[in-house]
Amino acid sequence: MSLIVQKYGGTSVGSVERIKAVTQRVAATKAAGHDVIVVVSAMAGETNRLLELASAVAQKPDPREVDALVATGEQVSIATLALALIDYGQPARSLLAHQARISTDNIYGRARIRNIDSESIMSVVRQGAVAVVAGFQGVDDGFNITTLGRGGSDTSAIAVAAAVKADVCEIYTDVSGVYTADPRVRPAAKKLDRISYDEMLELASLGAKVLQIRSVEAAKRFAVPVHVRTSFSDEEGTWVVQEDSTMENVLVSGVAMDLNEAKVTVLHVPDRPGVAAKIFTPIAKAHIVVDMIIQNASEEGFTDLTFTVPKGDLDKALSMIKGVATEIGAAGVVSSESPIAKVSVVGLGMRSHAGVAARLFEVLSREGINVQMISTSEIKISVVIEAKYAELAVRVLHQALVEEGFEEGAT
Amino acid sequence: MSLIVQKYGGTSVGSVERIKAVTQRVAATKAAGHDVIVVVSAMAGETNRLLELASAVAQKPDPREVDALVATGEQVSIATLALALIDYGQPARSLLAHQARISTDNIYGRARIRNIDSESIMSVVRQGAVAVVAGFQGVDDGFNITTLGRGGSDTSAIAVAAAVKADVCEIYTDVSGVYTADPRVRPAAKKLDRISYDEMLELASLGAKVLQIRSVEAAKRFAVPVHVRTSFSDEEGTWVVQEDSTMENVLVSGVAMDLNEAKVTVLHVPDRPGVAAKIFTPIAKAHIVVDMIIQNASEEGFTDLTFTVPKGDLDKALSMIKGVATEIGAAGVVSSESPIAKVSVVGLGMRSHAGVAARLFEVLSREGINVQMISTSEIKISVVIEAKYAELAVRVLHQALVEEGFEEGAT
Repeated sequence: MSLIVQKYGGTSVGSVERIKAVTQRVAATKAAGHDVIVVVSAMAGETNRLLELASAVAQKPDPREVDALVATGEQVSIATLALALIDYGQPARSLLAHQARISTDNIYGRARIRNIDSESIMSVVRQGAVAVVAGFQGVDDGFNITTLGRGGSDTSAIAVAAAVKADVCEIYTDVSGVYTADPRVRPAAKKLDRISYDEMLELASLGAKVLQIRSVEAAKRFAVPVHVRTSFSDEEGTWVVQEDSTMENVLVSGVAMDLNEAKVTVLHVPDRPGVAAKIFTPIAKAHIVVDMIIQNASEEGFTDLTFTVPKGDLDKALSMIKGVATEIGAAGVVSSESPIAKVSVVGLGMRSHAGVAARLFEVLSREGINVQMISTSEIKISVVIEAKYAELAVRVLHQALVEEGFEEGAT
Repeated sequence: MSLIVQKYGGTSVGSVERIKAVTQRVAATKAAGHDVIVVVSAMAGETNRLLELASAVAQKPDPREVDALVATGEQVSIATLALALIDYGQPARSLLAHQARISTDNIYGRARIRNIDSESIMSVVRQGAVAVVAGFQGVDDGFNITTLGRGGSDTSAIAVAAAVKADVCEIYTDVSGVYTADPRVRPAAKKLDRISYDEMLELASLGAKVLQIRSVEAAKRFAVPVHVRTSFSDEEGTWVVQEDSTMENVLVSGVAMDLNEAKVTVLHVPDRPGVAAKIFTPIAKAHIVVDMIIQNASEEGFTDLTFTVPKGDLDKALSMIKGVATEIGAAGVVSSESPIAKVSVVGLGMRSHAGVAARLFEVLSREGINVQMISTSEIKISVVIEAKYAELAVRVLHQALVEEGFEEGAT
């Protein structure tokens, strides 16, 4: 008998039929002898509908009231699922954030969970009932409703699992697990049986939208075993777990692409201390996340500085940097004329195998794909290329590094 | 400067346009120097939509979860109105039941308010903001969400007004006040400037659906002046207030009709002590509200017993009574073959004027309307007649007792 947290996303509870399917799955898990806590998102489309209502009545919607408004989406889901479970014969009880005592800070719209008092959830479980907990929301010290930001229900589920010391947190989604690449781009992509937290973190940050990055951080911090799977079948999904010694045998776990970045270059920047800080401090203050930064070799005391920002923040970043560029005596600021893509390969095995980068460049150059920027971590290599080559790059890198394995250059 | 509670019903906040109109009215009241607390219902249609969702997933919806589900309707309203107010430049803050500390018992679906800790509402008001409080809902001692039953937002508003000692509770609705009769039935009906709590109580219980009866009871108990008016114009409505000496000068304040009752007759009942209790105890236990009861003069130790119940409870009442009838040796049970209507006249002046009943019978008999049952209180006479005569009865009674005044038989 295990204690299982199951998280169902918006499509999994998106209709009366889907809610009934979830009801049967939850009841079956309970009937198999497990204790079950369910964390639910709003029904698909509901959060957007509520945000549209907010926009219709306010040009600059107040963050506290937006959170109070959108939190109704999860409230509808948990009450409806509890209704369905009870009617099915399975005792259940819905719990809102203030009832489940999910405490957060008071940053509306992107609050962080500080603490979950597991007692109120576990008292429901001990009565033999399923606790149906609202995802995505919390309550601050002043009893105000807060929300965790998009995808926050994953984080809720993992935080609940950590608080109650669950044996597993099952994340039900509309894909059947984590794949070595997007199967729409490379049909030969395979579902991974297991992946480490660190690899999942890199993939989450690289645009593989299976799990929200904060939820993976939380899972790693509290060592919560996560099982990503589909609510549309009984198929096993992908386990996201603590690294073990066998995992390094797999060189590359995944190839991901991200088309949501844009490139900015500050031209002919005087190469002296403090200049980079002058450029990046205002951007950071505007909460724009700079991903990759490269600086060319200095030439007669001047250098070009290139970095990437989310596409949506490009205009804001450009207008900020133009003033700074003049101030520091740079020649000007340009954004990339053609769209860019970031393509990344991730794998624990890269730690102990030195030749992955060389093989990656070789494969890309064979296809005539020019690498504009490079960024690496211990278990990841990301390159920025022209967007039109993104799918091709994923295909050839997946073929060379995942399907054929990696033979040459292994240390 | 006054402290004003304004309650807006579902049609008053039923669309983005209506919410903006309410925003302007609230802001204007604030700008005129008053402190304002707003109590809001769910947007029109929303509660029914949520109840349909409950019915779609459960054959016997669990009452606790139904309350958690439907309470989202008011949450959407208060957050949306607060968003609109803040965007309009008027500081505001939405308060759910647990935030406004509206404590109730734990009877889901028809909870009663026990206490409102006015401090949390007044702390918002003292900051110069409008407190936007969710109507219809409360919280029990276990932090569960409860709802007050249909029309409960009126009760919420008056309870809040009593708790904060407001100068007035304005009830905004889609009619412009309390009329001497339904203007669709008798176009000559006039809007009343003032009416006493007791008269309003009688009218509320007689099917004039302007205010929920429990809210009038609360207003009377706490002496909250209530102003019933429309949100569609600035027109003055009807004040529901404590009785004063001038009010008895008006003989009849209103003529109301109610088509939602059905009549049950138990035939040839042995006329001995305890028989009535045997009949009415099971009905009361089933929460069926018996309105009028008449018993014919006993004839050779037997009598016919006739009473009315809400139409919706008729089948249940009949099947209960049939068993009892056999047990007590009655000849049988019948329901009225033709539909009935209850027509009532209400007025404080009836206390001191004895001839109203006589005039009423005279007017009805002139039209050939047979009176099947009669029930009176100090300030009310109700008669049960055939439903097809209901509108005619309202018209002739209104003409004789309201329009022409009452000349004959005055003591």
